[in-house]
Amino acid sequence: MSHDSSSERITTELRAWITTAAPGAMLPSTRALVAQYGASPVTVQKALRTLAGQGLVESRPGVGTFVRTVRLARPNDYGWQTAALGAPAHPVPQLSTALRNTPADVIALHSGYPDRELLPERLVRAALSRAVRSSAAVSRSPAAGLPELQAWFAAELGAGAPAGIAPPVPTDVVVLPGSQSGLGTAFRALAGAGRPLLMESPTYWGAILAAAQAGVEVIPIPSGPQGPDPEDLVRAFEQTGARAFYAQPTFANPTGAQWSPALADQVLDVVRRHGAFLIEDDWAHDFGITSEAAPLAARDDSGHVVYLRSLTKSVSPAVRIAGIIARGPARERILADVQAETMYVSGVLQAAALDVVTHPGWATHLRSLRQQLGVRRDLLAAAVRDHLPEAHLPALPRGGLNLWVRLPDATDVVRLVRDCEQAGVMVAAGNEWFPAEPTGPYLRLNYAGVNPGAFPEGARIIGRALAGQRRHPEPSI
Amino acid sequence: MSHDSSSERITTELRAWITTAAPGAMLPSTRALVAQYGASPVTVQKALRTLAGQGLVESRPGVGTFVRTVRLARPNDYGWQTAALGAPAHPVPQLSTALRNTPADVIALHSGYPDRELLPERLVRAALSRAVRSSAAVSRSPAAGLPELQAWFAAELGAGAPAGIAPPVPTDVVVLPGSQSGLGTAFRALAGAGRPLLMESPTYWGAILAAAQAGVEVIPIPSGPQGPDPEDLVRAFEQTGARAFYAQPTFANPTGAQWSPALADQVLDVVRRHGAFLIEDDWAHDFGITSEAAPLAARDDSGHVVYLRSLTKSVSPAVRIAGIIARGPARERILADVQAETMYVSGVLQAAALDVVTHPGWATHLRSLRQQLGVRRDLLAAAVRDHLPEAHLPALPRGGLNLWVRLPDATDVVRLVRDCEQAGVMVAAGNEWFPAEPTGPYLRLNYAGVNPGAFPEGARIIGRALAGQRRHPEPSI
Repeated sequence: MSHDSSSERITTELRAWITTAAPGAMLPSTRALVAQYGASPVTVQKALRTLAGQGLVESRPGVGTFVRTVRLARPNDYGWQTAALGAPAHPVPQLSTALRNTPADVIALHSGYPDRELLPERLVRAALSRAVRSSAAVSRSPAAGLPELQAWFAAELGAGAPAGIAPPVPTDVVVLPGSQSGLGTAFRALAGAGRPLLMESPTYWGAILAAAQAGVEVIPIPSGPQGPDPEDLVRAFEQTGARAFYAQPTFANPTGAQWSPALADQVLDVVRRHGAFLIEDDWAHDFGITSEAAPLAARDDSGHVVYLRSLTKSVSPAVRIAGIIARGPARERILADVQAETMYVSGVLQAAALDVVTHPGWATHLRSLRQQLGVRRDLLAAAVRDHLPEAHLPALPRGGLNLWVRLPDATDVVRLVRDCEQAGVMVAAGNEWFPAEPTGPYLRLNYAGVNPGAFPEGARIIGRALAGQRRHPEPSI
Repeated sequence: MSHDSSSERITTELRAWITTAAPGAMLPSTRALVAQYGASPVTVQKALRTLAGQGLVESRPGVGTFVRTVRLARPNDYGWQTAALGAPAHPVPQLSTALRNTPADVIALHSGYPDRELLPERLVRAALSRAVRSSAAVSRSPAAGLPELQAWFAAELGAGAPAGIAPPVPTDVVVLPGSQSGLGTAFRALAGAGRPLLMESPTYWGAILAAAQAGVEVIPIPSGPQGPDPEDLVRAFEQTGARAFYAQPTFANPTGAQWSPALADQVLDVVRRHGAFLIEDDWAHDFGITSEAAPLAARDDSGHVVYLRSLTKSVSPAVRIAGIIARGPARERILADVQAETMYVSGVLQAAALDVVTHPGWATHLRSLRQQLGVRRDLLAAAVRDHLPEAHLPALPRGGLNLWVRLPDATDVVRLVRDCEQAGVMVAAGNEWFPAEPTGPYLRLNYAGVNPGAFPEGARIIGRALAGQRRHPEPSI
């Protein structure tokens, strides 16, 4: 048995013993525990440290280790906080289903993150190990990020710049601890509390959450499998005076839409004519399947496109790194917000992220990822067609991690999600992706989660739950 | 020469060559570079990757590596952004001097961070290495943090709870990517945009920055070497209807004040009577010299104290981890804000932070740190007394990283800071620590920076600049 698992076993057994012991009781000595468990003193001490860290025991040096005296908690009345806090200024949506962790035996189609087997795990561990040995482990990064990482973000976007368009420069980049904080920053810096912000609808629930927190007034712009209609956009800009539009032009979450080059031109044109910003969230840049991401920001050097690029989902959820690229005064406004919010980002994570994306193995990984995502997408789509014949699945997405499935009109999605969960399948109700009322019953099904072999079984269970709902319509209470 | 430094040398030399080369010029082949530098192909390729990452070269597989065609940037006019952005809703202060990086030959008394030699570097590298090998490197942390780290934060605070006070439980803790984001979160969640927030004055400039970003109305409460006067606090609560007071009761930044137990009781009493929150920023918990931190939060189980504890400064600036402890609905309001802002914190950093603070070497490190801080504090204080006789240095702080030096009334602090910088000494003007107009000319001198041996020389230079100012008063223009 390894050192670690042996220490874990001792921790578990001692924890069980502690629950039956009197407060203040003395634990057996380290020597006695060594003998009892046949483990090394280091292992036993590690277990004791864990228990102390959990507040279960306390050690008195030179005396021994004791079960911590648990003070009986009387129920506290926090009622006074109600008046102090007041009602929230902006109702903040519940956290999405997409973030829930689930037991291993559940078929998980709800997640927003790629499964571990889709991550470049060896690259990530090697890159983190190198970063840990470098000076990044003990020094402070500049507020805007490590210059080399700024340069990489700028060069990656600039590589797509057509002739005649100036590519971004490294100082246009601000490094962020994940793209979620970039959303809040962009909304605060470019719209601001109480001011209107146009958003695709449906769109990423995390963006809806960030908009609520920033206190902006969200103006939903309908967006389907082809992206938004530029005429809707013109109307909204004119009616609201908004100066910013948040969108995911590439493999949008949840619809999977990728804007055509013509639509991209039209939207850029509308945005420019209205003296506005396009906040381009390129969340799925690394998740192309039959198409490549071609950021609009590469085609704009007039400062109208503010570009958000995340590495968290494609590198590792532990390497929380994103970059935001903006030009002109907007970049200053953004940097000021980022500094007030996070001051600077861990240099270890920045160095590791840069190491991964500049390693020759990264391109190899992306090729293999593309192929695996394609297989998974097709497998889940086939399962949905087979077992959910009454559902409507628009054209297959050319990238991203999700299928966006339209259910029959009368479907009670909340009941469906609950029934599926009881039957061992986690799915996400489409409702969470709408800034306003949902326009119909949708499910978002993620094909990047664990165990794609279970996709057919998962679809079968959803189909059964859907059929059950048709047979026994639940009375609304 | 090591692998890394050899690759850095090649990078540097090639970069110099590139600046003189024509755009599109082909670099020597890898084989030629290997021969030229006597380095391995891996080392040469690493250098080329670095240059590619910086956008200086591009490689065409099977062809070679080329100097990147730099497109001539025409000057862009971002004037349209002025109208789109509008004036900032809340003027955001300039970033503090305390964040500036300086060349090695400068005497740096301005910094807010302990020098690398004061960090537990071996513990940090070992802890990060272990975290990198664990599953934390490739998995997503729960939104509120790793349960073991939540438990540690709760147990550390709970260890100081007197009899009859229920210690916090692990779920009262929310883990943050550094305490700066915790300030914004606490101000948004507990006060809210447009609502009043009481703050000590002078106080931490990062808190003033976060308050400006959150859009709260800052009400300064004068606070000196003994802390605030409870009567000022009562008056401010009554006049403004504020429901929250931000303070640093332990080794306050910049004054170094530590509240007496009697003052702590009085403030807690005032806060409770006004149905308000005390936001206790325990930034210097690990920096006691002749006194220990004794958080007020340990003495409150009625949810009135919201406690912010950072590990970044004492563990490593790369391990950006802090915890916020709150009870009752306030904790929910805080968690909602944290989720909207950061979603979750890198598990690698959390695991490493926990590893460091539960390692037996941590206590040893803190004892040595205490001793070193004491020596440095006394050395700088003696230098100030020797070379700045006209400055007033209140009682020595019992902990923290700074001396707060009052200068003669007529001193032009901005000029003094500039003159010192020109003479090779970085100091921070006290002005940055006042939410409103400064009440006098102050310097904050940090004794945790590089090279304490230079403290006397630093003080001598400040003294000379001060004397020069007396001899040649600058006309105000």
